[in-house]
Amino acid sequence: MAGKIIDGKFIAKKIREELASGVSSFKEKTGRAPRIDVILVGDNPASHVYVGMKEKAAAEIGIKSVKHEFPSITEKDLIELVKKLKNDREVNGILVQLPLPKDINEENVLSAITAEKDVDGFLAENLGWLCRGKERLQSCTPLGVMKMLEHESVEIEGKHAVVIGRSNIVGKPMMLMLLNKNATVTVCHSRTKDLASHTKTADILVAAAGVPEMVKANMVKDGAVVIDVGTTKVDGKLKGDVDFEGVKERTSLITPVPGGVGPMTIAMLMYNTLQAAKKQEGI
Amino acid sequence: MAGKIIDGKFIAKKIREELASGVSSFKEKTGRAPRIDVILVGDNPASHVYVGMKEKAAAEIGIKSVKHEFPSITEKDLIELVKKLKNDREVNGILVQLPLPKDINEENVLSAITAEKDVDGFLAENLGWLCRGKERLQSCTPLGVMKMLEHESVEIEGKHAVVIGRSNIVGKPMMLMLLNKNATVTVCHSRTKDLASHTKTADILVAAAGVPEMVKANMVKDGAVVIDVGTTKVDGKLKGDVDFEGVKERTSLITPVPGGVGPMTIAMLMYNTLQAAKKQEGI
Repeated sequence: MAGKIIDGKFIAKKIREELASGVSSFKEKTGRAPRIDVILVGDNPASHVYVGMKEKAAAEIGIKSVKHEFPSITEKDLIELVKKLKNDREVNGILVQLPLPKDINEENVLSAITAEKDVDGFLAENLGWLCRGKERLQSCTPLGVMKMLEHESVEIEGKHAVVIGRSNIVGKPMMLMLLNKNATVTVCHSRTKDLASHTKTADILVAAAGVPEMVKANMVKDGAVVIDVGTTKVDGKLKGDVDFEGVKERTSLITPVPGGVGPMTIAMLMYNTLQAAKKQEGI
Repeated sequence: MAGKIIDGKFIAKKIREELASGVSSFKEKTGRAPRIDVILVGDNPASHVYVGMKEKAAAEIGIKSVKHEFPSITEKDLIELVKKLKNDREVNGILVQLPLPKDINEENVLSAITAEKDVDGFLAENLGWLCRGKERLQSCTPLGVMKMLEHESVEIEGKHAVVIGRSNIVGKPMMLMLLNKNATVTVCHSRTKDLASHTKTADILVAAAGVPEMVKANMVKDGAVVIDVGTTKVDGKLKGDVDFEGVKERTSLITPVPGGVGPMTIAMLMYNTLQAAKKQEGI
């Protein structure tokens, strides 16, 4: 059985189109566009690329994005800015591009964002609501995975979902989202013994460990749905956590890297911004 | 192999003794006792019994407990009271005994508690911090399970822990606490298919489903550690989720019901109250 390849680019495009229509309707009702403010500190080249992609996506959909860029800034001034944006009714979403320079405590800065404007879904409060099954703003990458599964009509309830990786922004919210959809969920990580014994029983396998091609064909159950969140640069090429060529023969559905989960993340950031704006405006 | 029985009463007593000493030292430093305010609404007999047990435990340890008891109260007045206690510097912990009468929205009332005084560890913010691996105030029952495992020197890292049940106050925080200690964790629940296939691979099995004696000997791996959080009254007798007599032969360690996890919960409430008080006083 050769797995159908899930086309993340196509799904993300469809979502962006739906969002553009949602943004239009928001503008009609409120007379203004939803707005996301993006804070970028330092000269990390990848961060500059990501922020550029976010600005482009926002522009396409009709969301207003405002960039606050600093070659350097003190933690105190950065927190002041976040607080100002938090109290500005025109601002619907606040995104602090990570990583921040090492002399700034990320936790202190992120804590200054209010949960209502936390469009990255990183704050403890939003993660806690997700844990309680009351979804507020949710982490973009795992939310994108859920939208992909929904788009492909993957049945989640009663299935065994195995997540490899337990980061605060992917693995853990992923586990909670799958649990909220009534999957039986197992979380594996670097300390897991005999990883294959777990992955081999997975109906849905999400690899988010950041270890290139660690998931091999003999670790996957026949007919599984395999989602690859990994993106590691190896010799200038983007590699996923899944040995795609070997594994795809065993799956019913599989995401490629690139062109799988990747394009969904920014689409979900835009989704969160529109959701936040609508909630703040009570519509 | 007949499992050693974990004596929750004994461990809880030991913890209360340690807490009494911690409270003494808090009093010396601050000139006052840590204080927990307990709100009790309505005439639920079990709630009255629980609150009585909490008052007794507090008194034994030297924690001041103040009871706010109402045959009935409006949601608005109840929220006013919670807000007053939240702003009262003398009050270190606020506990609203659940369930509240049906005309009061529990979520609205609990949301009025500040995370710093949420000694039940129920608030989204505290659950979110637990999820992020930064433990603040944590739900008492699963925290009690962790203390029991620690007391019995159970190795958690790298073990497969299976939790049956996914309530917001037991199953989900339990899963997060075990994950934070580097277990590979599986969460099963009412929608899980072939429950035994999961439980049979568990090195540590925590049953928190509230279904009397659902865990049978043939569902347990030889040498497993089995923790029974279930407490259901059957013909006037307290029954756990585990068929104790059948299962204990297969385990290395097992908790009984009663006398297992039960006594730990209130001890952990006292632990949380002292922790909250110390943090608020900066000691």
